[in-house]
Amino acid sequence: MSISEFDLIQRFFNQEKPLRSDVILGIGDDAALLQPPHGQQIVVTTDTLVLGKHFSDNTSPRDIGHRSLAVNLSDLAAMGAEPAWILLALTLPVVDEAWLQQFSQGFFSLMQSFHCQLVGGNLTCGPLSITVQALGFVPSGKALFRSGARAGDRIYVSGSLGDAGLALAYLQNNKLFSLSEKQIQSLLQRLHRPQPRVDMGLALRGIAHSAIDISDGLAADLGHILSASRVGAMIAVAELPLSEILQELPAEKAWQLALSAGDDYELCFTVASTREKELRECLKEITCPFTCIGVIKNEAGLVFHREDGSPFGLKKLGFQHF
Amino acid sequence: MSISEFDLIQRFFNQEKPLRSDVILGIGDDAALLQPPHGQQIVVTTDTLVLGKHFSDNTSPRDIGHRSLAVNLSDLAAMGAEPAWILLALTLPVVDEAWLQQFSQGFFSLMQSFHCQLVGGNLTCGPLSITVQALGFVPSGKALFRSGARAGDRIYVSGSLGDAGLALAYLQNNKLFSLSEKQIQSLLQRLHRPQPRVDMGLALRGIAHSAIDISDGLAADLGHILSASRVGAMIAVAELPLSEILQELPAEKAWQLALSAGDDYELCFTVASTREKELRECLKEITCPFTCIGVIKNEAGLVFHREDGSPFGLKKLGFQHF
Repeated sequence: MSISEFDLIQRFFNQEKPLRSDVILGIGDDAALLQPPHGQQIVVTTDTLVLGKHFSDNTSPRDIGHRSLAVNLSDLAAMGAEPAWILLALTLPVVDEAWLQQFSQGFFSLMQSFHCQLVGGNLTCGPLSITVQALGFVPSGKALFRSGARAGDRIYVSGSLGDAGLALAYLQNNKLFSLSEKQIQSLLQRLHRPQPRVDMGLALRGIAHSAIDISDGLAADLGHILSASRVGAMIAVAELPLSEILQELPAEKAWQLALSAGDDYELCFTVASTREKELRECLKEITCPFTCIGVIKNEAGLVFHREDGSPFGLKKLGFQHF
Repeated sequence: MSISEFDLIQRFFNQEKPLRSDVILGIGDDAALLQPPHGQQIVVTTDTLVLGKHFSDNTSPRDIGHRSLAVNLSDLAAMGAEPAWILLALTLPVVDEAWLQQFSQGFFSLMQSFHCQLVGGNLTCGPLSITVQALGFVPSGKALFRSGARAGDRIYVSGSLGDAGLALAYLQNNKLFSLSEKQIQSLLQRLHRPQPRVDMGLALRGIAHSAIDISDGLAADLGHILSASRVGAMIAVAELPLSEILQELPAEKAWQLALSAGDDYELCFTVASTREKELRECLKEITCPFTCIGVIKNEAGLVFHREDGSPFGLKKLGFQHF
């Protein structure tokens, strides 16, 4: 190959103008040099997408670019952090300029919409895989943790659940579905272009007792809040927020998807029941809806019930990484 | 697989006691929460090792663990930064507990020797690949850049050059070499267990005009200093620091290796010629030796000359990533 890592970075990943004044030195040296804001703590996360596991040969490079960043911004959102600096470690089997062009468009478009800057990274030759690191800020003492849920807290989720799971099921066997082209596109959009709930995470600072993003399914991820907080929870399945498409499914099937399918990247958070009015005030500028789906209990365990009070049984817990 | 990502992280990657008081929250939430030190800037880098490219099926997992972190710490060293926080994104084809045990030993052993803490990461199923992110600190205004070299600066390198390159050549065709077992082990150690020159990087703050770590070969990496600083350089090949093993090779061959072979992870830096005495004072506590190999010139270009003043021709520039 005649094209060097340096040339590729210059062509596809070096933003023309610096966006952020806190980036003292971005791409082009051994490491980036960054100025942390006064009085803030640093929040940092990393996530990897691998061909065959998180996306297929058919996934558009633009979607892969968007999603590889979105899943990291979603982690920052769940901490109540404001995203700022991004690193991208990209492993590619060959230099495919059309692929790189589209990937970087998806990546940069999302990055710029959150006023973030790519400050470093790495291009390697190997099986297609993308690892992103995202850094952000939160005022000292204001971060949201998994461990702060208290008995009596109401449990909320943003947006709607299960759409990405239905999209994945559709991709695996589309003969099972009778969906319109518009519905299919809407579902695939949810899977391939998750919208990190950064604004909501910021608005929840100081009011939510706990938060997590839903990457492995609500039941599994709420389970992390419960074990970290040493509490239990009761979920009213009829309250689970479902998109119009999921509402067309048999309710039992829709609830299973909403509880156990991953990839929605909504937020799940808990707030003291006495502060519901305040919560509505905090979130009034946020366009994404939020729904109360249950309550935190003193007793360990996660239980689901129907409107008539009868228990609902979950078939599958959520995404297993191995 | 019955073993979850969470269990694997707990078993192999969660240090029992927190090491650093600036880690407010380490592994176990959506992201890590970190307290940046007052008056310091953040230095951050990421690097990926891929099976078949940076190591082979025969490389010991312990060496892979060491090297995946070392190459990142080397980048921080080249910035004059003090390493602090580490993230590890590990992609594994299967859960091999013996492999994980050895990998984590190599990784943690190096990490702890630099008082760093693993604060986050990610385990994914896929082709073997390791992406590490390292964060460190440097007092505001004290970072070392590639861009600060000035005409008249002396050019220095740490340690010795070309050993890792000879080790790689040996692994590719060991029939060409007549080396003792001890020599082979010594060479392989240089390739598989690079020692990041963190202490030297710290000592060079305030005295070096520019610095880079030598990952792709001296000529290529010094070339980055030259282009970033818009200067040229003259290197005296007879001054290149060579290990005893390289000194046994024909001089021309040893110089080629020292100039163009990658993976040494030594530092190359430039210092005003008037400050040589001060430099020796700054580095007097550093056990790793350093050698003056040339001088920065106003005229663009990188030239090599022998002791008799005749030019030395470089055959190959250095490691190409693609």
